[in-house]
Amino acid sequence: MTTHEKVAALRAELARQGLTGFLVPQADEHQGEYVPPRARRLAWLTGFTGSAGLAVVLAETAAIFVDGRYTLQVRDQVPADLFEYQHVTQSPPTDWLRGRLKPGDRLGYDPWLHTVEGVERLVAAGRKAGAELVPCKQNPVDALWSDQPGPPLAPVVPHELAYTGRAAADKRREIAALLEREGVDATVLTAPDSVAWLLNVRGGDVEHTPLPLAFALCHRDGTVDLFLDTRKLGPGLREHLGDGVRIAAPEALGPALDRLGAARAAVGLDPAMAAAWISERLTAAGATVVRGTDPCALPKAQKNEVELAGARACHRRDGAALCRFLAWLARETPAGRLTEIGAAARLDAFRAAEALFREPSFPTISGAGPNGAIVHYRATPATDRPIGPGILYLVDSGGQYQDGTTDVTRTVAIGPPTAEQRDRFTRVLKGHIALATARFPAGTTGAQLDGFARRPLWETGLDYDHGTGHGVGSYLGVHEGPQRITKAGSSVALKPGMICSNEPGYYKTGAYGIRIESLVVVTPVSAPAGAEQELLGFETLTLAPIDRALVEPALLAADEIAWLDAYHRRVRETIGPLVDAGTAAWLEEATRALET
Amino acid sequence: MTTHEKVAALRAELARQGLTGFLVPQADEHQGEYVPPRARRLAWLTGFTGSAGLAVVLAETAAIFVDGRYTLQVRDQVPADLFEYQHVTQSPPTDWLRGRLKPGDRLGYDPWLHTVEGVERLVAAGRKAGAELVPCKQNPVDALWSDQPGPPLAPVVPHELAYTGRAAADKRREIAALLEREGVDATVLTAPDSVAWLLNVRGGDVEHTPLPLAFALCHRDGTVDLFLDTRKLGPGLREHLGDGVRIAAPEALGPALDRLGAARAAVGLDPAMAAAWISERLTAAGATVVRGTDPCALPKAQKNEVELAGARACHRRDGAALCRFLAWLARETPAGRLTEIGAAARLDAFRAAEALFREPSFPTISGAGPNGAIVHYRATPATDRPIGPGILYLVDSGGQYQDGTTDVTRTVAIGPPTAEQRDRFTRVLKGHIALATARFPAGTTGAQLDGFARRPLWETGLDYDHGTGHGVGSYLGVHEGPQRITKAGSSVALKPGMICSNEPGYYKTGAYGIRIESLVVVTPVSAPAGAEQELLGFETLTLAPIDRALVEPALLAADEIAWLDAYHRRVRETIGPLVDAGTAAWLEEATRALET
Repeated sequence: MTTHEKVAALRAELARQGLTGFLVPQADEHQGEYVPPRARRLAWLTGFTGSAGLAVVLAETAAIFVDGRYTLQVRDQVPADLFEYQHVTQSPPTDWLRGRLKPGDRLGYDPWLHTVEGVERLVAAGRKAGAELVPCKQNPVDALWSDQPGPPLAPVVPHELAYTGRAAADKRREIAALLEREGVDATVLTAPDSVAWLLNVRGGDVEHTPLPLAFALCHRDGTVDLFLDTRKLGPGLREHLGDGVRIAAPEALGPALDRLGAARAAVGLDPAMAAAWISERLTAAGATVVRGTDPCALPKAQKNEVELAGARACHRRDGAALCRFLAWLARETPAGRLTEIGAAARLDAFRAAEALFREPSFPTISGAGPNGAIVHYRATPATDRPIGPGILYLVDSGGQYQDGTTDVTRTVAIGPPTAEQRDRFTRVLKGHIALATARFPAGTTGAQLDGFARRPLWETGLDYDHGTGHGVGSYLGVHEGPQRITKAGSSVALKPGMICSNEPGYYKTGAYGIRIESLVVVTPVSAPAGAEQELLGFETLTLAPIDRALVEPALLAADEIAWLDAYHRRVRETIGPLVDAGTAAWLEEATRALET
Repeated sequence: MTTHEKVAALRAELARQGLTGFLVPQADEHQGEYVPPRARRLAWLTGFTGSAGLAVVLAETAAIFVDGRYTLQVRDQVPADLFEYQHVTQSPPTDWLRGRLKPGDRLGYDPWLHTVEGVERLVAAGRKAGAELVPCKQNPVDALWSDQPGPPLAPVVPHELAYTGRAAADKRREIAALLEREGVDATVLTAPDSVAWLLNVRGGDVEHTPLPLAFALCHRDGTVDLFLDTRKLGPGLREHLGDGVRIAAPEALGPALDRLGAARAAVGLDPAMAAAWISERLTAAGATVVRGTDPCALPKAQKNEVELAGARACHRRDGAALCRFLAWLARETPAGRLTEIGAAARLDAFRAAEALFREPSFPTISGAGPNGAIVHYRATPATDRPIGPGILYLVDSGGQYQDGTTDVTRTVAIGPPTAEQRDRFTRVLKGHIALATARFPAGTTGAQLDGFARRPLWETGLDYDHGTGHGVGSYLGVHEGPQRITKAGSSVALKPGMICSNEPGYYKTGAYGIRIESLVVVTPVSAPAGAEQELLGFETLTLAPIDRALVEPALLAADEIAWLDAYHRRVRETIGPLVDAGTAAWLEEATRALET
């Protein structure tokens, strides 16, 4: 079926079900970033393959909402005569709907694919227009998608204490104490990475993140119900989980929620993350839903010493792989035969040769020239550009290692860069350094630091349309909460052990993209004499040179130059001994002190 | 009655009404910062005279919650054997209550004195403890307070077009269009400054702000019901208001809300500002309460050209008054006879001599030495300290002028300051300059800029426990929303014409306080070549020297020194011609370029 045929068929199906519209988010039942093939309904329907988006199909009109990363990609993939293109924050779906829904309209949604809070926003928007939001028992897209894949069945395996640093039974006790303190009888874990963290297990149900797609119920007595297809039980899993964890089939979740309802239990649920279906089922059964944040989110984010040792170790190997790639790139580009896809493949191969590597932590972004300005670009044969002299090349990549997760972006000039490119790159670097060197009192949120990374760009009337930093898991999600460093306020304070990215950028549409991304970990800072606040700062984990050819020293203050030189010295001294002679020679040159 | 007797009497009254506790906020029916004498129930009950606070009286225990400004003052004023002292953000009342309420408890509150959202938070906290929140028909404190004053009856007078720049009829049309767009039939204005702005009137019902304490109903047809005691009608007011504004007695508000309910109207209400009583009355009458922000808040905050001309003009006069004071202070302090109260009186007198001056915009804070560390200090005969050599003197003051509102803090060294004081002062100055010189894209909120002002203090392990900037009205509240520059996230973007304070500080308890506060106005910045964002920045309105003796030039970057020298040149050139020869000579010296 073509996109036109699919949309027509969906409209016919909606008419049959008495609906005047339907919402198709890029989402699965766990609201995860990477979803299994059966949940890629948005891609099936519209052709849009980005990692986030929402389509709204009404009887006469339709729109697709994407964020700043995908404003270019959506135009290439989705027919303009079928879908209006909308920027999800500048023109939110609720605003768009308020202008188009009419009294009496019935807008359908799949309650498994929207969060509790998401549904509330939709219901409020519908109410203002006099329209009704209708939860669908069966997803109308699934009714049309004849070859929709089944749920994934990758084995779930133990994740060893040598990597987690803490026994699952101990974590279960901590969560139980939290439930006790909050006065709830149980809590529903809907985020697979929370399940994985709590039980010290990993899976393989989606790409790029070792997630077991599974729900769990944590009880106040410290026991856990894990809802998991028994075909997914990996070797040794039952023994590893022990007596405190009961395994039940995925279909048993609903009845388990019903039992909590019958017991008039108070059940914790994160309304920003949990599917509305779960909340509706609990409420219908008689349970009291107590809103709160996922109790695993905060302890998962604060890595312990064993996890941090793993993070430092995998960043050394990751840095060595990236340096081999960058040295190879420097040798190859003069020949002019390299393209984005070839380069990405080579980088992935360098990384794959490292110990404990499992898979890329996301699809490598390999953007030459104008493709570098597409924030979450993914090269295809149709878009594949040569990496040749006169361009900037942006490469954003990362690895899942058994001891940790990496995510790094470097931008390199192929041939001499222009003065404008050096100006922009240096401003991005100044922002990167301002964040890397920030010291701040305990209690400070990422939102309070975000401006440090943007100010050098703001000063000349520039900015970037993405966050400055996201949390990163420990052999888990490369994007993980609850902390983040973004313009939008966040009430979560940065705490020691939290790993975040530091990734300001600048993107000139149609010309070039710049991003400098390293991972950092929040660390206590020894307070100077007279300090009155408990001070925190960042330790940069990522070890790879920042292209000196793109740095304009005249724009840097003395302390910024000192930071760059010290960072480069550390990269050289740490990575040099790990790489071949050719890479080491390249590294020596790439990490030389700036001439000012 | 002593505080002990009052608390005992209140407990007896609560028992009589079947309540196990009662909340006594510093609040009136309009949730204003300055309240009329009859609303000072917190002061009557506890003795605490700060501008913000809340007491909770339970059967056996009681607590008083204040913010960082008042942690010292509360200890001086409130008996420790009656009330626990609590920091309102570090230990919020809802947390405290959750730990102390028992199932079956009935906690009373006056629904006129709490906002809709405030009551919701209390109800949720109560529910977790199994306790009930009970709205009281009559405030139990009023039942005990035999000599409680009546409501104020200051005349309400027109505020002329020469100051407002915009006719009230025009403003009413704008608000009506906003109601139309939001799909509501009417909105309740509960904030007296919104009423004053909308109708171009001023009153005198509270100190320091020319407010008419009155409610208003704005209808979609552009007409307004103003609920006002006819004894408050000033000369020419009826003609000034015109046909579109109906005047009714204050008691007519309830029945008017009932009529909206009978008509099944959709009525806008700001749940963060409106008394719960209003929402409860509307809902009970059958109206649909539509939550939204006060529609006047944003247009009121964005001053027009006439208001900005007034702001600049009153800041010249205010600067002249402050310079006369600072020059006088420099002459007087060597004699050693000056104290805080005397100095404040002299400053108030200098200001009162200026054209269009009406009253101080808040009680002058005149803090010598350790008293400067009390953020909202108010000198009393018991605390009055001499202003003599070897101390820092902090003076925070402002005026209500018919053409605008001012608020300025300067800290001066009396005699030579210590190296530590110079270090701290210079860090505060660096933060002040970082904010004053910020350029940022349209859409940026104050929260995104707050860190700029704190970073120089953070770097050495220091901070200040108050916001960096608050909005300021135009011959209205010296604290006005909706914008603010604070740690806590705010979703309100800074827009051209908004006036804010820029006031970082540092406070060493028991030793000294430092604050440098100027008002700034958000202005468009002409974008540099290549700019892609609409840029905004700040114009500093306040004109008064920053004490050079407290500046350590070695801590300043070249561009910071250039900023200070340029600011001082502007102060000298603008204020010099307005002052007497003695002050001008002092000003010449006080605004000299830094020697580095």
